[in-house]
Amino acid sequence: MKDDKQAPVPASTTEGQPIRCKAAVSRRAGEPLVIEDIIVAPPKPREARIRIICSSLCHSDITLRNLQDPPAIFPRILGHEATGVVESVGKDVTEVTKGDVVIPVILPECGECIDCKSTKSNRCTNFPFKVSPWMPRDGTTRFTGQNGEIIYHFLFISSFSEYTVVDIANLIKIDPEIPPDRACLLGCGVSTGVGAAWRTAGVEPGSTVAIFGLGSIGLAVAEGARLCGATRIIGVDINPEKFEIGKKFGVTDFVNAGECGGKPVGQVIIEITDGGADYCFECVGMASLVHEAYASCRKGWGKTIVLGVDKPGARINLSSYEVLHDGKSLMGSLFGGLKPKSHVPILLKRYMDKELQLDKFVTHEVEFKDINKAFDLLSKGECLRCVIWMDK
Amino acid sequence: MKDDKQAPVPASTTEGQPIRCKAAVSRRAGEPLVIEDIIVAPPKPREARIRIICSSLCHSDITLRNLQDPPAIFPRILGHEATGVVESVGKDVTEVTKGDVVIPVILPECGECIDCKSTKSNRCTNFPFKVSPWMPRDGTTRFTGQNGEIIYHFLFISSFSEYTVVDIANLIKIDPEIPPDRACLLGCGVSTGVGAAWRTAGVEPGSTVAIFGLGSIGLAVAEGARLCGATRIIGVDINPEKFEIGKKFGVTDFVNAGECGGKPVGQVIIEITDGGADYCFECVGMASLVHEAYASCRKGWGKTIVLGVDKPGARINLSSYEVLHDGKSLMGSLFGGLKPKSHVPILLKRYMDKELQLDKFVTHEVEFKDINKAFDLLSKGECLRCVIWMDK
Repeated sequence: MKDDKQAPVPASTTEGQPIRCKAAVSRRAGEPLVIEDIIVAPPKPREARIRIICSSLCHSDITLRNLQDPPAIFPRILGHEATGVVESVGKDVTEVTKGDVVIPVILPECGECIDCKSTKSNRCTNFPFKVSPWMPRDGTTRFTGQNGEIIYHFLFISSFSEYTVVDIANLIKIDPEIPPDRACLLGCGVSTGVGAAWRTAGVEPGSTVAIFGLGSIGLAVAEGARLCGATRIIGVDINPEKFEIGKKFGVTDFVNAGECGGKPVGQVIIEITDGGADYCFECVGMASLVHEAYASCRKGWGKTIVLGVDKPGARINLSSYEVLHDGKSLMGSLFGGLKPKSHVPILLKRYMDKELQLDKFVTHEVEFKDINKAFDLLSKGECLRCVIWMDK
Repeated sequence: MKDDKQAPVPASTTEGQPIRCKAAVSRRAGEPLVIEDIIVAPPKPREARIRIICSSLCHSDITLRNLQDPPAIFPRILGHEATGVVESVGKDVTEVTKGDVVIPVILPECGECIDCKSTKSNRCTNFPFKVSPWMPRDGTTRFTGQNGEIIYHFLFISSFSEYTVVDIANLIKIDPEIPPDRACLLGCGVSTGVGAAWRTAGVEPGSTVAIFGLGSIGLAVAEGARLCGATRIIGVDINPEKFEIGKKFGVTDFVNAGECGGKPVGQVIIEITDGGADYCFECVGMASLVHEAYASCRKGWGKTIVLGVDKPGARINLSSYEVLHDGKSLMGSLFGGLKPKSHVPILLKRYMDKELQLDKFVTHEVEFKDINKAFDLLSKGECLRCVIWMDK
């Protein structure tokens, strides 16, 4: 070894001990992250400490960096789409062991509660999904700053750190052959979109799908719809450049919501589909757009699936008459309706089988020291997923 | 034959001819029906003229008798839950023939459109459900009053008349062994409730169901849920007497919405079910109650089904956050999601097999001349279904 500083610390020297490492800390709303030394405590029971290989940046990281009010909290370590290697495990952990390659997922799955045992739900009762600043099991943090200062967690993952601690309920062991900069995508956004088409909607071969908003989530819905055999995938956006990107993900038609000649988008979609789309997905996060998506659905069997996160307090408003008479349904899709530990491995296998196309989501990559460049790129809408490498 | 006046007129004398007969005509909003002589024209192509045996009174008849504004229209022949005998058929009718016992159903099924051919929809494209004053196929009436005055149709059925004309799309031939005062119930209300549990919700054995409003529709939902194997059926009403009635229909628990000690009904249901009901049915027709039903559903898989008809313009208002995060779905149920010509015969068979209990819905019966008594009884909430016999 040429340089002791760069050599990995032998596991035996860190297991059970705090680790000092670099993390990108979000210290003030709207400001760039600060790379600084932190201390990562050893994992407690049912937890694993992970050395992060890479993360991809998701819009929620930007939202929570920029937000002033709760659920924002500072100082915090953001990042939640990641691939890593288990450095050590706490008591009672049998699912993973030192050296395993893993991805954390935003939705916990304890495997023991009524929801986890049900085939109909993906919302773990024991560890409900939340934008919590704590570890899920004991409500404390594993991160300490320079002077003993508490640093908060994000989505039970906090991957913008060389090391993090993740509960076993949020951890999936993966085949080490899978490229880490592809596997990480399935921790949140791509799984949400693909799953929404596959699991929540149950898109069928030959279906017509309309997707409101062609960001990463919307494009992931298109990819999921394509995998499910949809023959017509209509992208709706106000940015015509999105159609060119969309084509790569199987989008067949484009409706520019800003240029419908005074017609509501719903009417345009009903006209071009001769009655409405079978499945409509709201991927922007505007409650008002949910109504437009609902209006674009085919009477008789159309489903509207809500994936976008609107601001707190936003309301979805539908005509009582339409709901009763039109035979449509409305549903939300959290993590795409996927049961993380059953369905994410299926998606990874489909990637390795060259069916699920993950490569085209990764448009940029940066070194960890340049993490704020990733924030700039995604904030400006100039990338889909930017991978942040810890060791490059 | 003892009395020529009471003997049935031989069909040969009326076929192809107008028939003069008695009908109960709704002439002014809120006023009693007037029994008077009308002329019923012969059926046009794809129509049948029916001699009505009996009708049961449904709340929609009262609503449209009392309403001043459209879709109310006068003079009109109300009535839409009926059993009758085919007197004659128009051209191109092969499905029924003279002498067949039939029930009209409020939802047309042409059998040829994309919706009728789909297993997912029960909303015929060729003849959409509407509260129309006309026949569905040619937009004219078959009823004429004393001085050539037009008398309007109701829900394509108008059964408060000794004779009526019904399009073949709204007509189901039934086994003449089925008691007519039971078969008639399946033309609208009971089918809607039973179907909502069976077809729209897909209630599963062991499920927990909550029903908001224990009128005839709500009780029919209970009957449907019982048939589907629900083990817990919670009735929600402000009238505690409804619980005693509900018990006869399989309701196991009662929540008095007026006496929840300041708690929202949803919270009470979540507490007594340890998380919420699997299926919630809004059977009152209040958009605000839809939100309460939605709140009462189990997170992860709960379904809220809207059956109640609110006033025009009413809006359903849901939190965007809840829709996204809670994994619930919302859907309307028109005619219980039943495809009339496939599913109503199944319900009739289940009645004959003593599985579906129709008898207990019929609490009163009157002669045709006393039809306004039926309106009084149902208006006061003193009956479930009152059967009006034409020949008694």
